[in-house]
Amino acid sequence: MKFGLFGGATAETSPSQSSTEDSTARWQEKSDRSELPKSEDSHGYAQFVDAIVLAEALGYHSIFLVEHHFTGVGQVSASLNLLTYLAARTKTIRLGTGVIVVPWHNPVLLAEQAATVDVLSQGRLDFGVGKGYRPGEFEGFCIPIEEAGERFDDAMALIRQSLSSETRFSYHSERWNFEDIVVEPPSVQKPHPPLWQAAGRPESLKAAAEGGYSLLLDQFATFEVTLERFRIYRDAVEASGRAFDPMNVAVARGMAIIRNEEEREIAVNKRMASLNNMNQLAKSADSSYVSSMQSDPDLRKAAEQGTLIGTPEEIIERVRQLRNGGVEYILLAGAQTSPQTLRDFAGEIMPAFA
Amino acid sequence: MKFGLFGGATAETSPSQSSTEDSTARWQEKSDRSELPKSEDSHGYAQFVDAIVLAEALGYHSIFLVEHHFTGVGQVSASLNLLTYLAARTKTIRLGTGVIVVPWHNPVLLAEQAATVDVLSQGRLDFGVGKGYRPGEFEGFCIPIEEAGERFDDAMALIRQSLSSETRFSYHSERWNFEDIVVEPPSVQKPHPPLWQAAGRPESLKAAAEGGYSLLLDQFATFEVTLERFRIYRDAVEASGRAFDPMNVAVARGMAIIRNEEEREIAVNKRMASLNNMNQLAKSADSSYVSSMQSDPDLRKAAEQGTLIGTPEEIIERVRQLRNGGVEYILLAGAQTSPQTLRDFAGEIMPAFA
Repeated sequence: MKFGLFGGATAETSPSQSSTEDSTARWQEKSDRSELPKSEDSHGYAQFVDAIVLAEALGYHSIFLVEHHFTGVGQVSASLNLLTYLAARTKTIRLGTGVIVVPWHNPVLLAEQAATVDVLSQGRLDFGVGKGYRPGEFEGFCIPIEEAGERFDDAMALIRQSLSSETRFSYHSERWNFEDIVVEPPSVQKPHPPLWQAAGRPESLKAAAEGGYSLLLDQFATFEVTLERFRIYRDAVEASGRAFDPMNVAVARGMAIIRNEEEREIAVNKRMASLNNMNQLAKSADSSYVSSMQSDPDLRKAAEQGTLIGTPEEIIERVRQLRNGGVEYILLAGAQTSPQTLRDFAGEIMPAFA
Repeated sequence: MKFGLFGGATAETSPSQSSTEDSTARWQEKSDRSELPKSEDSHGYAQFVDAIVLAEALGYHSIFLVEHHFTGVGQVSASLNLLTYLAARTKTIRLGTGVIVVPWHNPVLLAEQAATVDVLSQGRLDFGVGKGYRPGEFEGFCIPIEEAGERFDDAMALIRQSLSSETRFSYHSERWNFEDIVVEPPSVQKPHPPLWQAAGRPESLKAAAEGGYSLLLDQFATFEVTLERFRIYRDAVEASGRAFDPMNVAVARGMAIIRNEEEREIAVNKRMASLNNMNQLAKSADSSYVSSMQSDPDLRKAAEQGTLIGTPEEIIERVRQLRNGGVEYILLAGAQTSPQTLRDFAGEIMPAFA
């Protein structure tokens, strides 16, 4: 059993936030977005780096760093740059993108950046990619979210060729044109850094398996739904004639260690509020677009049944439930914002799975 | 007097190369570019990082890192990522791009990356930008080099607004559309990291001064031409009503310390070959496009009169010539490829200007 981290950093983390991923929701609560000042400090980045250095020492396997834009809370936008910095400050922890939203990037420049991180980290990049799911961000980029899928497919074809071609090649599509190029530096991991994709719907899970992607399972779904998705992906991998490696599936989970019932209620309520915020960000203002990156509409059910919130003993039991379903790799969402949480989980829960 | 470094790194540096910038030319010497294999090792990056750590300890002021693509020798493509890595490995040295070729990048993503490097380096980014000058690279990107100027102007307007706006804004042009965005993280340097531009022609020098850019003067021109460009820029800064700071002009120079006449002839011949290569890269195959990033066609004159090639005493005298013309900041092109050269220059030439 391996445990990694999932989430982001902001320029204004505060101890009251269990997950900075959640904090992106805050700007949408304001009535007039244009009135929001830019955050002025950068302490969040330094705290984040320190937390990942600590996490490596405590035995965490990975950090998957989110990419978001235009949130107004100073959240990580240039995730491959922050991972590059971490590459210099760490030695063994895997460095993942969770995920890069490919439709917003130039595929060749992105491949070059990813390969550079892989070189500088000596082969530690887990290259998580996705098509994006937040309408507010697509509106900022002036890219129709309806085009996300086709843009993703086009860009990934080019990215795969960029990362794996040993010789010069040309690529021409409706949106991208490159002539007689070779993409450098060559990555350390061959043929390229592992590609990870988040998926939830059955057809998406099967496509991820058939495309050779490792799988990120989101932090929103209940255990039951998550384990069903795990099975669909595993079966699809095996149906394609490859051996299934459980380390190719990472399950993200909200987590809070509680010591008494009062703390439990606080943690569950906080989780409900954060799920509500994240649900809002994953649909358009008029609800004409709703992403699958959503929790169950019953927020209490989602907060209680979809997370690792509990006493250490309860968390160990919940991790065992996942393991009994085949899961060997869990990403703790937002745990990096609290060094104490990192230490407690490593000291009280990880030894049960050593 | 301050001394910095200018150049790049490749995945296959060898002791015989005085400047890795020069090495980009090699792929064009081959008759069939498509036959070139990708470089397989990444030692050049590690050597480069070690050299910059050493340079910081020796008192060098900065590194300006070039960006190139599709060269086939593994040269740095994702320069802001390598600078991010250096940000973690260094404490005081200025981290510059020399330059980012803006027409190839998404301006908002680029601004986010630059701001992230500025945050992670605690305000050490010198953001050098340019419109590009190598036809082969524009052909790879399938962008007409004739559009470089207008694309640069458009992108820089958006980048400046992205880096300095304290509130949300929208930007719409022929090529770029962003709606109600705020670009984060906020940079540490205010209102944004210093912008540097390479220029040579009188109208370009004046435009750089009027646009508030610091100035990179290329390594190709003779001392006479370089000092004339220096004066044009200085006069234009003062004509715009601002005080002129000589640290806002960095003069790049090829440099080699020689101990006898045999070494001088070797160094001059090597420089002539590298100038010839770089001149080829800066024009199109049919010479219909020729960049100003060219040496004098008399290569021996350019190699002897445009460089700091000589004994330590001769180099000190040549640096004094530049200083007498007002220059206070010199970038040594390619010196980072030889730790011994870094040490010798720091030990034998820098003390004369301490």
